[in-house]
Amino acid sequence: MAKGLGSGELRIGIAGLGTVGVGVLRLLTENQVEISARTGGALRVTAVSARDATRDRGVDLSVLAFEADAAALAARDDVDVLVEVIGGTSGAGADAVMAALRAGKAVVTANKALVAERGAELAALVAEHGGALYFEAAVAGGIPAIKGLREGLAANRVKSVAGILNGTCNFILTKMRAERRAFDDVLAEAQALGYAEADPSFDIDGVDAAHKLAILSAVAFGGVPDFGAIDLRGIRDVTLEDIEMAAEFDFSLKLLGVAKPRVGGPGVRQYVAPVMVPLDNPIASVEDSFNAVVVQADPVDEIMMRGRGAGEGPTASAVVADIIDFARGINPPLFGHSTPVAASGAASGEGAAEERRFWRLLVDDRPGVIAEVSQVLSEQGLSVEKILQTDADGSRAHIFILTHAAPRSIADKVASALDGLSCMVEQPAVYSIED
Amino acid sequence: MAKGLGSGELRIGIAGLGTVGVGVLRLLTENQVEISARTGGALRVTAVSARDATRDRGVDLSVLAFEADAAALAARDDVDVLVEVIGGTSGAGADAVMAALRAGKAVVTANKALVAERGAELAALVAEHGGALYFEAAVAGGIPAIKGLREGLAANRVKSVAGILNGTCNFILTKMRAERRAFDDVLAEAQALGYAEADPSFDIDGVDAAHKLAILSAVAFGGVPDFGAIDLRGIRDVTLEDIEMAAEFDFSLKLLGVAKPRVGGPGVRQYVAPVMVPLDNPIASVEDSFNAVVVQADPVDEIMMRGRGAGEGPTASAVVADIIDFARGINPPLFGHSTPVAASGAASGEGAAEERRFWRLLVDDRPGVIAEVSQVLSEQGLSVEKILQTDADGSRAHIFILTHAAPRSIADKVASALDGLSCMVEQPAVYSIED
Repeated sequence: MAKGLGSGELRIGIAGLGTVGVGVLRLLTENQVEISARTGGALRVTAVSARDATRDRGVDLSVLAFEADAAALAARDDVDVLVEVIGGTSGAGADAVMAALRAGKAVVTANKALVAERGAELAALVAEHGGALYFEAAVAGGIPAIKGLREGLAANRVKSVAGILNGTCNFILTKMRAERRAFDDVLAEAQALGYAEADPSFDIDGVDAAHKLAILSAVAFGGVPDFGAIDLRGIRDVTLEDIEMAAEFDFSLKLLGVAKPRVGGPGVRQYVAPVMVPLDNPIASVEDSFNAVVVQADPVDEIMMRGRGAGEGPTASAVVADIIDFARGINPPLFGHSTPVAASGAASGEGAAEERRFWRLLVDDRPGVIAEVSQVLSEQGLSVEKILQTDADGSRAHIFILTHAAPRSIADKVASALDGLSCMVEQPAVYSIED
Repeated sequence: MAKGLGSGELRIGIAGLGTVGVGVLRLLTENQVEISARTGGALRVTAVSARDATRDRGVDLSVLAFEADAAALAARDDVDVLVEVIGGTSGAGADAVMAALRAGKAVVTANKALVAERGAELAALVAEHGGALYFEAAVAGGIPAIKGLREGLAANRVKSVAGILNGTCNFILTKMRAERRAFDDVLAEAQALGYAEADPSFDIDGVDAAHKLAILSAVAFGGVPDFGAIDLRGIRDVTLEDIEMAAEFDFSLKLLGVAKPRVGGPGVRQYVAPVMVPLDNPIASVEDSFNAVVVQADPVDEIMMRGRGAGEGPTASAVVADIIDFARGINPPLFGHSTPVAASGAASGEGAAEERRFWRLLVDDRPGVIAEVSQVLSEQGLSVEKILQTDADGSRAHIFILTHAAPRSIADKVASALDGLSCMVEQPAVYSIED
């Protein structure tokens, strides 16, 4: 069994010397006095692993052992805790994590893909070999979202977890609104500045947010992360009009990851999607690259945690907090539950959940169009809270509609009925309202 | 040494059956399934203590042992954990806590006055007898502020902790602004509705916020709570004009508790005061009775936690989270530090800290007044960022001034020089800007 700071010194091996790995090294040195006072002993990095041993990273590696192979690092006798900041569901990082867990060691990882997609395997290894796994840094960077939920709200029955979990997307949406620019334009700038990757799909299609959501959901509701069950929709199709009309309707358009118990059935509904958040919800005003997690739970009501979701400092803060947990002998049940309480729910779809929705239609601008659209809604029993028509480009018009709460089945019927109208130029865009 | 859930069952005694005590009882029953899954065992209340054994509290006490004396409850063999929700720095609650700690037991308390004012004694008892003390519920109700700071941000060097720590004051300030009403008027309504006590001084003079701040400060900076070192100023003298002018100058007026390292000296500066918060600071939009804690730290940058700071549910959530910590074997160093890092600083005053400030002057409305006032500021080297004069009541005028960052010593000289002007009707009111 992994045991914490038994000998008065904890020996750490760091697999991966990118931004986060170097950040961890730097943090352990710079805040050494505070960290020792808080653990009652020393945390010492003994060995590191990286692809390139010689590259200058601005930190002194000369006193540290170097392993070209991360799994060999994990196996070293002078490594009590493996810090894995390589990433990926397979390859060097994953191999090192598995090797350390098989050796019954403690692992601290920032690898959200691995924990989200192979969480069950990791849990089995921890259970079999008596090691420990910490993953605060995998979710929402510097925000102590895992500890806040798993320890801080441990007495609660969670009703929903919702988060702005991808800083790149929040940055893009904020900039579109603030500078009245189109998605492609802002994305290109973000890529030029290095805020978004050359291949941005991991961020903007919601995969990164979904990895974090799967982990949060497991901690909130029990079980292991169920990444495959997440409904995924990114921000590629969000238009400037959507964002501006959101404000007109007293909403803020955010890419959220949401998990909540499925209405009328077992399991948990998990989705990542751009949704409309009412302006009086505190998450609506979380801008730029900030992340936030909002938990609705009984009996605590609503808790929001807000902070930086990425970057060297915030991520290193979370990694080292996990090392300190281990040093202090803090080792809560993996994913927060000693025994499972509810299946994470393999089915997808919105089920019977009733939601308000926001619709954007592009139609031919001719008399009677609003009447045609309204009749479709009325025939399907979907009632309108607010409707607004604007000129799109002379011959075409946008119709924006806020509809009252209704189940997905009705919304689907309305969508396909609208699609059959001759005035419709393109398929309607529909956003959930996160009330 | 207190040991957690050794036998598979943890036996709890609750001292105090007011709102919070009943809330804890109810929560342990209602969320029993979740809580067992998260601890791997049962949490069972075996005994309770209250002044009146017979009053109907809406919960079934018939299977529980009853002790009239809380200290006797603490001493019972079938009580592993004492939950103390009586309150007070002396009397039944304090006696029970001391008795349990002397017996080497675990104590979970919501008693902020006791922890803030007698923290050193409690720490000595824990160290001597090997018990454990948990106090999440003593600070900011349902917000996991202690765990967030002590575990979540354990790797950081804290630069400041600032919080909206008293819901009654935040409610009053919010209502004054929203309904354009005077302080006395809103306070009277809050008392009539039961939101504020008949003797409201504990809340509105900042004592309650200061108790919480002393605890937060100890966890953030090391040492034990130093309640006596806190500069205290409540909201009695806040006028509607101050609140409205705050908005005019892009600030929100909030009662904050703030702790930060003293500039240019050892120790920590702690104060509770109504201060001006820039509107782009996320704490500025925390309204009504919500609480929030903002931590500025290296390397995590800024973390905000927001939620309900009082009430049966949120407080019970924090109490039971602490019981679960103990059940899981989680017992971090008391106040977060195994060894002290910095004296908490007995001196008071703002020292050399440079701050922007907001001034409200009431002056005779005659020509040349602004020039007189400006000259005083200029002579003392205090430069003006913005100045605004409004009519107060025909013969008198208000002058509101935002001054650039300057040390307290200069602000004090300006205040006394202004006081010497014949046009001044009353002493100037000065607010710090929390940049």
